Amino acid sequence: MRDVAAAAGVSLATVSRVVNQLGGIAPETRRLVEQAIEELGLPGPVPRGGTPKPVEGAVYVRCPYVLTDYFGLIVSSIAEALDRHGRQVILNAGEATQQDPALASLASRRGIGGAILILPPEPSEDLVRLSSRRFPFVVVDPRTALPRDIPSVSAAHHSGARQLTAYLTGLGHTRIGVIAGPREWLAADARLSGHSAALADVGILPDPALVRHDQPTTQHGYRAAGELLDLVPRPTALVAFNDKAAIGALQAAAERGLSVPRDLSIAGFDDLDLARATTPQLTTVRQPLQEMGRMAVSLLIRLLERHEVEALHVELATELVVRGSTGVSTIGG
Amino acid sequence: MRDVAAAAGVSLATVSRVVNQLGGIAPETRRLVEQAIEELGLPGPVPRGGTPKPVEGAVYVRCPYVLTDYFGLIVSSIAEALDRHGRQVILNAGEATQQDPALASLASRRGIGGAILILPPEPSEDLVRLSSRRFPFVVVDPRTALPRDIPSVSAAHHSGARQLTAYLTGLGHTRIGVIAGPREWLAADARLSGHSAALADVGILPDPALVRHDQPTTQHGYRAAGELLDLVPRPTALVAFNDKAAIGALQAAAERGLSVPRDLSIAGFDDLDLARATTPQLTTVRQPLQEMGRMAVSLLIRLLERHEVEALHVELATELVVRGSTGVSTIGG
Repeated sequence: MRDVAAAAGVSLATVSRVVNQLGGIAPETRRLVEQAIEELGLPGPVPRGGTPKPVEGAVYVRCPYVLTDYFGLIVSSIAEALDRHGRQVILNAGEATQQDPALASLASRRGIGGAILILPPEPSEDLVRLSSRRFPFVVVDPRTALPRDIPSVSAAHHSGARQLTAYLTGLGHTRIGVIAGPREWLAADARLSGHSAALADVGILPDPALVRHDQPTTQHGYRAAGELLDLVPRPTALVAFNDKAAIGALQAAAERGLSVPRDLSIAGFDDLDLARATTPQLTTVRQPLQEMGRMAVSLLIRLLERHEVEALHVELATELVVRGSTGVSTIGG
Repeated sequence: MRDVAAAAGVSLATVSRVVNQLGGIAPETRRLVEQAIEELGLPGPVPRGGTPKPVEGAVYVRCPYVLTDYFGLIVSSIAEALDRHGRQVILNAGEATQQDPALASLASRRGIGGAILILPPEPSEDLVRLSSRRFPFVVVDPRTALPRDIPSVSAAHHSGARQLTAYLTGLGHTRIGVIAGPREWLAADARLSGHSAALADVGILPDPALVRHDQPTTQHGYRAAGELLDLVPRPTALVAFNDKAAIGALQAAAERGLSVPRDLSIAGFDDLDLARATTPQLTTVRQPLQEMGRMAVSLLIRLLERHEVEALHVELATELVVRGSTGVSTIGG
C-alpha cells in the first residue's frame, strides 16, 4: 500500500480508506488511488468478476492420469468453469499421483472447500467414506457404481453404445466383435449392455466369444482385434471401447489385408481428434467431455452453496458420429 | 481431534501431545492415537513425503489453452513433478482464461509462491514487468524472444527442424514446402532458420514462395498445403509446423490424388499420438514435452530456494522419428 500511496501522491491512511471502501474521500482522489492500484497490478478495492475467493474456497481437481486428449479436455473445461465462478483450482494430475493417499485426507486439508474426482481409481467404499465426512465432491466418469447420494457426471454409455450397434445392425451386420474395456468398469458394463440390447432388438443373441475385455489402449485394441478377426466365421464389424483401441483394430485389419470399410467395419468411442486422423476417419460416439466438466462444476457449486442437488447421477447424451470406417456388411447375414 | 480422542479412548490433551510430537506419552498410547488419526484420514503428526507445503508455497500453473495432447502432457508432468516437491498446484487453464488479466497481479496474489507460464500469449514486456517485481516464474515454450534473465524451457526448434530437413534433402528432395507457424512466433522463426540452414548445407537457396505462415491447426495445414501443392513445379515434400497441420496436409494430398510417400513426402512436428494414427504414420520430430515440464519445475524450485540459476534459457534436444510418410524423392532434382 506504501507503493500505492507514493504512486498516487496521497497518504497511507487515504489508500487504506479507499481499499476498505470507506467514505470521506474525494472522488478524484479515490480515482487516483484506484488507478495507482491497477497500474501496480494489485487487486482493486472493488471485487472484480473472476477474483478468486479466499483460499478456503479452493477446489481440488484430481485426475490421476496423463492429461492427454480425453482427460485434458475434461480438466480444462473444469478449470475454465471454476475460474468463472471465482474459484481457485488446485490440480493433482499425472500417473505418479495414483500412489498418493490423498483421497482420505481431502476432507481435512486446509484451504480446500471441495473436490472434483475424475475417473477415481479407488473402490466405492473410499468415496462413501469421504462423503460421510460431509466433504463436498463430484465424481466425473465413475469407474464403479456409486450410491445415489454421491454426485457423478458421465456420458450415457448404455444408450451411446446401443445407438452405435443399432446403426451397425441397420447396415446388415449380425456378427459384431466387441473390444470391451476392463471388465470391472462401470462404463464397459454399461456399453456392453447397450450393445446387447441393440442386438436383442433385431433378434440376435449376444455371443460371449465375440467379446474381449482389456485396457483401453491402442496396443490392447490391436491384440483383441487380432483375436476377434481370427475367429471363424469372422465378425463383419468391430466396436472398440474407445478411439485409441479402434486405431489398434485398424492396424490389425490392415495386417490381415482387410479393407475398411469394404471388408470390415470398425467403430470407436469418444470422438477425439484421433478419430479424424485415421484413414478412413473413424465412425465413433462423441462423449461430451467439455460439457461433463462444466456440469461437474455446476453440481459442485450447488453443493458448496448448500443447495439441494436432486438428480445426483447425471448422464449426458452422446452423439453418434458416422464417418468412413463403417459401411454396409458385404457378407451375407 | 475430538474424534481422534473418542476413537482412541484417550483425552484431548493426549491427542494434542501426540500431534505436536511432545513427550510424556506411553508408546502404546501414541500408537493408538496415530492409528486413530490414520483411520479417520487426518494428516498424521509425522510429515509424510508429498504433504503439501503451506499454501504460501503454491505454484500457479497457467496454460490458457484447451489441455489436449500437447498442453496436457506438459501440464501433467508439471503437476507430477510439483507434487513430488510437496508443492500445491493452482491451475489456470482453458481458452476462456486468455482474457484474464491475471499475469500482472500474480506477484501480489496471496498464497502463490511462484508460477509456470506455458506458451504465454502476453508480449515480452509484460513478462519483464512481472520479473522486475522479483516474482519467481519460468516460461515453457515462449512465444517471443525473452531477455536472458527470464528462465525458459523449450525444445531445440532450430536444430530439430534442421535435422528433419537434412533428412529430406538426403532423400533427394530439393523443393520442400513449409507449412510454418504464425510469423511472430519464436518457434516458427527458429524452425524456419533451421530449415534454411539445412538447405544451405546442400547448396539450395530458400524460396519464400515455398513458405506459408498460419495458425498451427489441421484446417490451416490443409489450406496451406493446398496452396503449396498447386504451385508449379510442385514441391516433392512438405514439412508442417506440427502433427495437426501435417494431418491437414495429408488430406490436401489425398484430395489431389497424390500418394504419400510415393508422390509426396510429408512430415510433422511434436510426435503426438496423432502421428501414429494416420495412414501412413507420420515422420515427425518428437518434442520432449514431459521433460520440458519436469525441467521447468526443476528451474522453478531452484529459483524458489534462491539458488543461482545460470543457464536460464534451456533448450531440450528433439528426436527425429522416421515413419511411413516420407520417402525418396521420385522427381528429378
